[in-house]
Amino acid sequence: MEKTEGPVLNPWFVTGLTEGEGCFTVSFSFRRKLKVGVETRPSFSLSLNRRDLELVKQLHAFFGCGAIRYSRSDRTYKYESRSVADLTRRIVPHFERFPLVGSKSKDFLIFADICRKARANEHLNGDILRTIIELAYEMNPSGKRRHEKRDLLRELDKLKV
Amino acid sequence: MEKTEGPVLNPWFVTGLTEGEGCFTVSFSFRRKLKVGVETRPSFSLSLNRRDLELVKQLHAFFGCGAIRYSRSDRTYKYESRSVADLTRRIVPHFERFPLVGSKSKDFLIFADICRKARANEHLNGDILRTIIELAYEMNPSGKRRHEKRDLLRELDKLKV
Repeated sequence: MEKTEGPVLNPWFVTGLTEGEGCFTVSFSFRRKLKVGVETRPSFSLSLNRRDLELVKQLHAFFGCGAIRYSRSDRTYKYESRSVADLTRRIVPHFERFPLVGSKSKDFLIFADICRKARANEHLNGDILRTIIELAYEMNPSGKRRHEKRDLLRELDKLKV
Repeated sequence: MEKTEGPVLNPWFVTGLTEGEGCFTVSFSFRRKLKVGVETRPSFSLSLNRRDLELVKQLHAFFGCGAIRYSRSDRTYKYESRSVADLTRRIVPHFERFPLVGSKSKDFLIFADICRKARANEHLNGDILRTIIELAYEMNPSGKRRHEKRDLLRELDKLKV
């Protein structure tokens, strides 16, 4: 990982910034190779204006995992962590120790639950995956979804898992 | 002030949230009653989705000044502090003790300088007001302005202050 300048961020500062700009999401993809037919993909991300690349690098260093990407369309740098191992070992424990305050804390509770289920491979069980899908669709009410919930659940029914 | 529920916010959390969602601005209005013809209006604000009214109330309680307004157009609650006395006594000292990290810290330095000048009534001096206007227009590069900088400076020249 690239070395960053500047002091280590205060953990409460990171939580406050996440309250405003962070995003906990769980998306799903159709994967015929999987017995359950649907892949569960949790992600934690935080996007900042390109003026704040230095701060995005400090976040990267703070969590010690994930990656930084530039989005040309909205001129932001996005810090993102998608590995289930990193999410359960580094991201989730941070927000349990330094908890969010507002409505994002509800998203986080669902997110943490889904990450732990995925870490334990429970998302490869049809019934638990149904629960995960229901929970994930309660998150981020204003967010957009690539797939309708009913299409994901229909896929599981079709595969009889 | 209305009583709020929940624990007192961590000061670093407040700084982190401000890094993402806070706004330091100095706007100007033409005021013929003033000798310098132009009024200096500093403001600190933070807008959150209406789901987070409780958190906005906690911010209000945290700073112990300012007011909360609802914006129908973007469905947000805005916490705002505009009194120069409150800004210099409560808002500015907080961000000096728990400093911002990213590009917003540059806005804040200018903002704190202007608030102190306004508190000392230096904004009623033509030359200092010219400096204040120049400084204020270096803030928030992406923000919109009601008046062009040159129109404000022209007003001062016209009044020969």
